[in-house]
Amino acid sequence: MNERSESELAFLTIEEAARLLRRGEISPIDLVEISLARIERGNPRLNAFLTITAEQARKQARAAERGFRRGAPKSLLYGIPLALKDNFYTRGIRTTAGSKILANFMPKQDSEVAKRLGAAGAILLGKTNMHEFAYGITSENPHYGPVHNPWALERISGGSSGGSAAAVATGMCFASVGTDTGGSIRVPAALCGVVGLKPTYGLVSVEGTVPLAPDFDHVGPMARNVTDACLLLEAIAGKYPRGEKRPDHRSLRKERPRKIRIGWPKDYFFERVDGEVRRLVERAAQTLVKILNARVDEAPLPRLADAIETSTNVIVAEANYYHESQGYFPARAADYGDDVRGHLERGAELRAVDYMRGIEKRREVLFEFEAAFARADVLVAPSTPIPAPRIGDTQIRVAGERETTVRAELLRMTRPGNISGLPALSIPCGFTQAGLPVGLQLIGPRWSEAKLLSIALAYEDATQWHARHPALP
Amino acid sequence: MNERSESELAFLTIEEAARLLRRGEISPIDLVEISLARIERGNPRLNAFLTITAEQARKQARAAERGFRRGAPKSLLYGIPLALKDNFYTRGIRTTAGSKILANFMPKQDSEVAKRLGAAGAILLGKTNMHEFAYGITSENPHYGPVHNPWALERISGGSSGGSAAAVATGMCFASVGTDTGGSIRVPAALCGVVGLKPTYGLVSVEGTVPLAPDFDHVGPMARNVTDACLLLEAIAGKYPRGEKRPDHRSLRKERPRKIRIGWPKDYFFERVDGEVRRLVERAAQTLVKILNARVDEAPLPRLADAIETSTNVIVAEANYYHESQGYFPARAADYGDDVRGHLERGAELRAVDYMRGIEKRREVLFEFEAAFARADVLVAPSTPIPAPRIGDTQIRVAGERETTVRAELLRMTRPGNISGLPALSIPCGFTQAGLPVGLQLIGPRWSEAKLLSIALAYEDATQWHARHPALP
Repeated sequence: MNERSESELAFLTIEEAARLLRRGEISPIDLVEISLARIERGNPRLNAFLTITAEQARKQARAAERGFRRGAPKSLLYGIPLALKDNFYTRGIRTTAGSKILANFMPKQDSEVAKRLGAAGAILLGKTNMHEFAYGITSENPHYGPVHNPWALERISGGSSGGSAAAVATGMCFASVGTDTGGSIRVPAALCGVVGLKPTYGLVSVEGTVPLAPDFDHVGPMARNVTDACLLLEAIAGKYPRGEKRPDHRSLRKERPRKIRIGWPKDYFFERVDGEVRRLVERAAQTLVKILNARVDEAPLPRLADAIETSTNVIVAEANYYHESQGYFPARAADYGDDVRGHLERGAELRAVDYMRGIEKRREVLFEFEAAFARADVLVAPSTPIPAPRIGDTQIRVAGERETTVRAELLRMTRPGNISGLPALSIPCGFTQAGLPVGLQLIGPRWSEAKLLSIALAYEDATQWHARHPALP
Repeated sequence: MNERSESELAFLTIEEAARLLRRGEISPIDLVEISLARIERGNPRLNAFLTITAEQARKQARAAERGFRRGAPKSLLYGIPLALKDNFYTRGIRTTAGSKILANFMPKQDSEVAKRLGAAGAILLGKTNMHEFAYGITSENPHYGPVHNPWALERISGGSSGGSAAAVATGMCFASVGTDTGGSIRVPAALCGVVGLKPTYGLVSVEGTVPLAPDFDHVGPMARNVTDACLLLEAIAGKYPRGEKRPDHRSLRKERPRKIRIGWPKDYFFERVDGEVRRLVERAAQTLVKILNARVDEAPLPRLADAIETSTNVIVAEANYYHESQGYFPARAADYGDDVRGHLERGAELRAVDYMRGIEKRREVLFEFEAAFARADVLVAPSTPIPAPRIGDTQIRVAGERETTVRAELLRMTRPGNISGLPALSIPCGFTQAGLPVGLQLIGPRWSEAKLLSIALAYEDATQWHARHPALP
């Protein structure tokens, strides 16, 4: 093995790991064993994995080692140990979607994402814990237990891709892929201090994922740094429309954008934000101004709040439609946790006309963002208005205002990205006094992933927040 | 005036009238005066018109007369007196849609149909009575009284374009334009013994009509014969997709289709049909076989019944969405008649997921018809399973089976055309023992209006049912 410490190796970037693998300084078997050892040590406390595919991973690692001996493979993901959220179909590997209903579901086929990562030569370490059926934002799973936040075990990891975020943050895997219907990649990324990218709607195939609300479901990477996120996106992304720039990790630094127009969306994204979070996001904006020679202008979104609230009806209806069509609800209502059952019970009562109002209001969401992006290249916002709440907390008071639900607050900053289908990423932008990570959200126009990642990388290079890792508990 | 009797002139075909007008044998003023006299005489009993625009019609007639003196106008509709259903916006002319809520609504603009007919030089006699907001199939209007069937005054005219059908049948106007969301052109055409055509969805603009359910609303002609219906359609139709044949009244007879494959849709369209109606439609099919050298094959539609029932949810939801968005319902619930209020009350409770199931099932309707039209050029069916019921009847027993509602039965044969968007026409195919007209429905693939009209014209030439007219009461 390499002379680096085990923990240094566990936190290598994928680029670095790939270089060492190609030089023969480490082997895929080393990486898998390190990962499995960390999972064995950390998972009992973190509860990030629902299924650990140790034997299969070791087998893949041996095959990858042989592959390296045959010559340098094309993909930098070759031999890199990853984890998948447990709502991606994996052939012959249990895929629960965090539910009791699918507790014994063994897919006969891989999801498109699993196929692509497998084809690239990535190694699957296991399937990560999540909010039941991805229908929640805390990853407090009633059947498999909550995912604990690696920065403060008594706190939530965020959801629904909470297990992926915790596993990536603690070096139990190099990266992961999650799904995001209301914030399920970006929220846990923010609360656990990793990078999470929800791409433009439709860019990454949802084929073979357990759906939540098909018109809003997105698949995207979760990683410890921007370059790794880009690498993963390259592996799983479908085609871009002609003329749109496809992200490429090799050119992210070279093509650093200058004279960026930053939009400051005070109307929706800076109403009711925790003081510490606000200060960190404001400081991040100042940093962007400095390093990118950017300017900041207000980006008014006066009708967004109302439009988001109404169009959320469509998400609710689609979730119910899926669960009712599958025969899960109400037939197996008792097999759901209280919160998801509650959502479905309320969704079942949603009126057709309110759904239709939602469809109509969704257009207003698009118009609002269109107007904003006519005068800005990127919007900066918090990823969540609060740092990670405590496990079990359901009510919260943000910035001293009236009490609301943890669920509503955690979803508030990210849901516009799902209703609009616009790409958005969360990147660490500092820590609260209590040591909890805070996420900066960058939102761009459709297909602007390359630019978003490039801005994010410039910020990461300047701040190095990504270099802080939580101790493995 | 011409030496023909007033009643002969009133029942001229539009082609004949246009010829006499061009020869100077009659004047548009004659036609308008004859029509107004018939309206004055017949309307108190039939209640077919809500608004009679006598002065404006006379003014238009004088202008048309001057027009003829300047030379033969292009359109055969020039100087022809027509009536419009009262849900088409007419500038400065009250447009009630049969409702109390719009009792004093004076549109500032013409509907697209009114514009086109006006541009062709047609003369507007008035606006016809209808089912309230077109949301019903009987034209028993609670605010303005029922439209009476000209063949039996104690019976309904059918709806919702009942006033148009009664006016056309009795020679109070030469033709009319109606709307059809579930059968509202074809059902009153059948019950009053005239020709009614619901074109392919989208062919005729609904711009400036009071909507019922936008994804199912169709505009189309109602006339006393096939050629007149074709003439009207030519005037109001938008563009056909490239490669599709645009109807042309001049070539309908020339291009008579031969070796037509007639589909006999026993599965849905011949379940529970009144014995007399069934025999007349069967005889019509035999006639078509003979005159067109056609063959008849069964056209199975095994899943249509269930798919139609579920997708009707979408119509219900759209109707509610309109009335709620306009602030009519529930705010002005007391201003609706009992039946429409009842529909809206039930529609308000419709669940989002049931609407979504309807959207999905609608595709099945399309697939069923697609399969049928792979092996048939045209489907023959009754336009209604029963002849005109009595005014006031709400329950009915068809073919000796269990009692159902008049509404459900009258809509049963026509609604598939709205859910599928396929063109369908009703043409008179005989009379019951009691002297009530019966309608034959021809349903074709998308954009097949030219072929449907051509088949219908061959049938009309062979049978001459259209030459029988009810006495003006």
